[in-house]
This record gives sequence, C-alpha cells and structure tokens, in this order.
Amino acid sequence: MKDLFSTDLTLGILGGGQLGKMLLTETRKYDIRTKVLDPSADAPGRLSCNQFVLGDFKDFDTVYSFGKDVQYLTIEIESVNTDALEKLRDEGVSVNPSPEVIKIIQNKAGQKEFYRDHQIATSPFLTFGSKAELLEAVEQGSVTIPFVWKAASGGYDGFGVSIVKKKEDLYPLGEGACIAEDLIPFEKELSVIVARNAQGEMKCFPTVEMEFHPTANQVEYVLCPADLSNDLDSKARDLAMKVADALKLEGVLAVEMFLTREGEILVNESAPRTHNSGHLTIENNYTSQFEQHLRAVLGLPLGDTTMKCPAVMANLVGAEGHSGDVTYEGYGDLLAMAGVNIHIYGKRQTRPFRKMGHVTVIGKTRAEAREMAERAKEGIQVKSIKS
Amino acid sequence: MKDLFSTDLTLGILGGGQLGKMLLTETRKYDIRTKVLDPSADAPGRLSCNQFVLGDFKDFDTVYSFGKDVQYLTIEIESVNTDALEKLRDEGVSVNPSPEVIKIIQNKAGQKEFYRDHQIATSPFLTFGSKAELLEAVEQGSVTIPFVWKAASGGYDGFGVSIVKKKEDLYPLGEGACIAEDLIPFEKELSVIVARNAQGEMKCFPTVEMEFHPTANQVEYVLCPADLSNDLDSKARDLAMKVADALKLEGVLAVEMFLTREGEILVNESAPRTHNSGHLTIENNYTSQFEQHLRAVLGLPLGDTTMKCPAVMANLVGAEGHSGDVTYEGYGDLLAMAGVNIHIYGKRQTRPFRKMGHVTVIGKTRAEAREMAERAKEGIQVKSIKS
Repeated sequence: MKDLFSTDLTLGILGGGQLGKMLLTETRKYDIRTKVLDPSADAPGRLSCNQFVLGDFKDFDTVYSFGKDVQYLTIEIESVNTDALEKLRDEGVSVNPSPEVIKIIQNKAGQKEFYRDHQIATSPFLTFGSKAELLEAVEQGSVTIPFVWKAASGGYDGFGVSIVKKKEDLYPLGEGACIAEDLIPFEKELSVIVARNAQGEMKCFPTVEMEFHPTANQVEYVLCPADLSNDLDSKARDLAMKVADALKLEGVLAVEMFLTREGEILVNESAPRTHNSGHLTIENNYTSQFEQHLRAVLGLPLGDTTMKCPAVMANLVGAEGHSGDVTYEGYGDLLAMAGVNIHIYGKRQTRPFRKMGHVTVIGKTRAEAREMAERAKEGIQVKSIKS
Repeated sequence: MKDLFSTDLTLGILGGGQLGKMLLTETRKYDIRTKVLDPSADAPGRLSCNQFVLGDFKDFDTVYSFGKDVQYLTIEIESVNTDALEKLRDEGVSVNPSPEVIKIIQNKAGQKEFYRDHQIATSPFLTFGSKAELLEAVEQGSVTIPFVWKAASGGYDGFGVSIVKKKEDLYPLGEGACIAEDLIPFEKELSVIVARNAQGEMKCFPTVEMEFHPTANQVEYVLCPADLSNDLDSKARDLAMKVADALKLEGVLAVEMFLTREGEILVNESAPRTHNSGHLTIENNYTSQFEQHLRAVLGLPLGDTTMKCPAVMANLVGAEGHSGDVTYEGYGDLLAMAGVNIHIYGKRQTRPFRKMGHVTVIGKTRAEAREMAERAKEGIQVKSIKS
C-alpha cells in the first residue's frame, strides 16, 4: 500500500461545495494533501485544502491544468469536463470515479439505457433528442400523460425534473434532449450508498428512506434505518451493488430507488459521489460516506458501515422569499437539544430552497429522531439579512 | 444569542497543534471564522482556519497584536502570555479560559495551592522556590523519598515530572521552582472532562480510565467508560465539577484524578482546554470535547455528552530510535478493522514518543475495543524515513 499520510501525494477535488468541504474534513484527519477547484471564491471548500484554485470545472483547459500535478483526482459533482479527465487518466493520474462512469451518469438518457442494458430494474422510459420530438410522441400517443420528464443533462437538486400531469405542464419544459418515464406510484423512496474499490470489494451503508418536500421536489428528511422487511432491504442493497459493479466503480455511489406498491424495487437514478442521503453517516456510522469515498478513490480498504444509532437528517434550505446575505435565526434551542448536530456549509448567499446546511439528529429510536428533526428544522430559519 | 454562523465574528486560537486542529474541524462545521497563532509554519492547525499567523504565543506583543481584531479568544495550550490576554480581555475581547484561570493552571505549585484553598481533595505536597531548597528539605527530612517531583512551570507530556525513588534520582532534576508530592499508591488513573459556560451550566463527559506507558510517563490508552461503581463515578464527576466551578471556568476542563487503594479520589492535575483523554469523544459521544469547548467559549448552550458506544483510544507516538521526516508503516490492516478510526495530526517530523496521531476504536464492549486498540497500536509504526 502506498504511503499516503503526511506525504506530498496530492488528491485533487473538482468542486468545493458542501460535499467537497465534508470530504476535506476526512482528508485532514489522515493528513492527505489536497487541491480543490471551484468557480466560487467563497466556496465552502475554500478552506481545509492545501491549495484552492479558482476556476470552472466544466472547462477543458482549466481541469487539465488543475489535474496535471496531482496523483489522485475525484469529484464532488458530475457536471465536470470528462475529456480533460480522460486525458489526465491516460497520462497516469488516478481518476475516480472514472471519466466513463461520469459520462454515463451525466446524461440521464444514457444512464437509463445503461440500466436497461445491464438488466437493472428501472421504470419504463423513452428518450428524445429535443422537446419537439417529445411533443410529437405525446401527440401520437406513444407517450401518455401523466409521465415524468427529465432533462437529459444539466439537472440538479430538483431542477430539470417535472411531473407532467396535464397538457399545460408541457409548456415550460426545456427545449433540449430529454426522457419521459412512466410515473410510478410508489410506497417509499429509498437510497443505498455503496462503496466499491479497485479490488472489487463492496460495502453498503444501511438503506435509508427519503421524504421529499411537497413542492420543491427536494429531499427534506432522510431516515435511517429504512422501515423495510429484511427481504426488501437486501433487495435494495443487492440492486445498489449490481449498479456499482456494472459501472466498475471506484468510489461511492448513491443509488436512489423506488419501492413500488407491488413490492418491486426500481432504480431511479445514481450519483457516483457522496450524496445528500448519506450525510447522516457522519455521526451515525462507524465510517462516514466521506471517509468511505476517500478510502475507495485512494485504493484503501473500505471501512465498516455499522450504524451506531438511528438517525434522521433534515436539510436546511433557504427560506422562501429570502435572497441575499444569509443569517441563521433561532438555533439556540437546537443547540440545547440532545443528539442534534448542526452543519452550516458556509455559503454567504441564500436563496429559496438553496441547500445551506443540514441537521442530523441521532436518537434512541428512529421515531424519536424523526420528531426531533422536525422540531429542529422548524427551529432554525435560513433568511437573508435585509428583507 | 449572537449570530455566529457564517459571519465575520472571529475566534482566535493560541496554538495550532493537534488540539487546535481538531477544534478547527468543529469551527468549520458551524462556519465560524477563525485565526490561529502558532510558532511553526508546519503546524497541524495551519489549514482549516481562515487566517494563520506565525508567531510565539508566549510573547506579549505577538499575542496582543494577534488578538486585537478578534471577538473571541481561546487556547489549545496553557503556556501562553497571560499579560497580553488580560489586556485584551480588559479591552473587550471575550477570552476563555480567563487569564486568571490560565495563570493558576500554568504554575503547578499555584494549582495545588488552589485545590488546597478550595477544599478539593489532592495529594499532600510542599512547594519550593528552587532545587536547592528542595534538597535542603530532603536533607532535613521534611521531604522523604519516595516522592513525586514536578517542575512548577514548563512541564508537558510527561516532561517536568519525576518519581524520586532513591537519592540518585535527585541529581537530574531541574534547578527551578518545584513541588514535592506524596507518592500515592493508586488503583487507577481517571479523567473527567467537564464543560462549564458563562451561565454556570456544567456537563461532564463519562469518566475515563488512563493507562500509562511504563517508561515514557505518557498516556498510552484511554478507556471509556471507566470500570467504576456508580458511587465512585459520581464522586469523580462531582470532583471535576467542583474544580470547574471553583475556577469559574468557561470552556472545557480536563481533571486528572487518582483512585487510591482506599477508594478515595484525589485530583492530580487539571487543564483548562481539550485534552488527550477526551479524543475518543469525537467518535464516541453525542458531542465531542472539541465542539463542547467551542460551545462553552462562544457562550452557546452545552451539548449532550451521552456515549454512543464503548471506546478505547491509543496514542500513536514516534518510535524509539527514530527522528526526522515521518513515515507511517503498516496501517493497511488497521483500515480494514471495523471500528478503528485513525487520526494523523500532520506533523512532518517525528521523534521518540512525540504525539503524532491517535487511534480510537469503538466496539460493542470495552474489552473488545481495548483488545483491538492494542492490535491497532502494534499494527502502525511511526518511523523516520531514513534510519
């Protein structure tokens, strides 16, 4: 095994948002040298790295010149320049997840096709090169309302996804390539974070349940463990491992799934990186998702994922009607609540539904943690200073 | 409560060693602005702060000019210039622990007198202005061998403490002011970390047991929880709270104690800061000692100290016979052991018994964790590159 602690070997990270920031906590723990690329001078990950580079991770030259002097390179976001990553990989940089995996995931149409081609259960779908093609298919009846529309590329945090319930919902959709998926009536939305390393070793974190915000199409609560039969739980984990293995992934992969009313589990979508549904692993598991990702991309043995306590995570998002310099109100009572862990990402500007932080509540039972998480979320207000 | 998250309010920290570094992990979690002063350009805490200042925290002018533009100021080490801290406090900076507390603790003679004056159980002792005075007392029989010698000031990590068992042991002792304590035959060495805030609220972490290295006079293992009757456990916690209250401390205080063979608990010494005996709180408790210290010095409500799992910490110190640029050997197997958490401080130079990192093992039982900690400590070797 390579000597990595307190050496000059460097891990480059494309993206210094909250995921990059929480990954840096782990690199500091092992004293691994890091270099972060982000387009914002105020990025949450601007501290805790050895070197911060201001620049666009979508730009070929920027990524290539950023990566030339690192030995390991990873991402916190999929929307990066994969051509530069390929060139760097060919020149000897250890790039994980691989450029090929990132490309598959970047395009939601390609991602769905990948599932279909690898016999990974997913909802039926059709792909379209443009909105015009989609509209024609609706006209001809090969796509029937209701359905789920997803932009093939560029979606993030609930943007780029719409449920088309009536004809009028078609008007605001983007013009570009897209997919139309069957609208699946589901019981629960689940997520399994699985890690896989170069040796093909795989480890899953406990299956979690996600509760979505009714209007923002964004995860509001993540609950661990999921309330599932052992049988369904292993089905979910097996499915996640099947995806990671098919991708030959090195790193962590978050696999979001639907549990249908018929007891089927379908893959919704995957992300080859740390994920919002895994934030509670920081307090809750023997190894956090961030440490696990670090281990996997550095070719180290994977960590144990045993749960310490039941936990519930709530996202702290910008309040509606508030944009501008952020201020956090009312968190005093939260700090006094046993088991409440507040994470503030350090973004200076808030806007409605922007992810500004999260709260993980650990408790003796999941029900207790869920109730406290709701109180915590109501207790803290993410507002703008003048409004 | 003051708005502290993502603002320009700044916490200054005197000392950027491992304790400062682990405190910074918590300031990042809350996005609290920080400024660190340390004499080493390579200090573990040089990253993760907003501003790093190179300089000597024992020097009046350096500390005063460092502290002039911060709102909160704390320490990771007691050997700081307290005159500068007093001036800063008088000018409105919130300095915690207070300069008065630091002064009491800095001088081991003064510290023992403080215990005596406040009816806090401690071993009998005599203070001397110089080695010559001590030798005279030994000559006259008012101090009898065996006894424990401690330098009044400047001791650290086992330096400045000697057990005088025979006359020859007197020769190498330092020339300065010192104390001679009765040598107490004890059952166990215990530590309680207690936090106290401005409102006088106090919270103890679970009592831990410390196992010392046979020759280095340094903590080798810390075990949580201590194996004690409920009665002795509350006695230990009460004693720790009595010290914190007598000091009117704001921050955390590590109180090291002896459990004598007669079942008495005596205070050995205290430190008004985070402490080696509390490192396992990072993985093990609802709130870590570092977060607790941060909460206390910022005037926030204290966090819950409930234990998640039994845990054992082992210090990773430089191997004997090795000095120079550090390298860590054999840690691959450790990374594969469930419940093992490796912390590498990031000091580039090793020397025998220098604290270079630690391992916290969490387990289903304390016995399991203790056994794994020993295997972990044996598994990883802290050596110099050329030797």
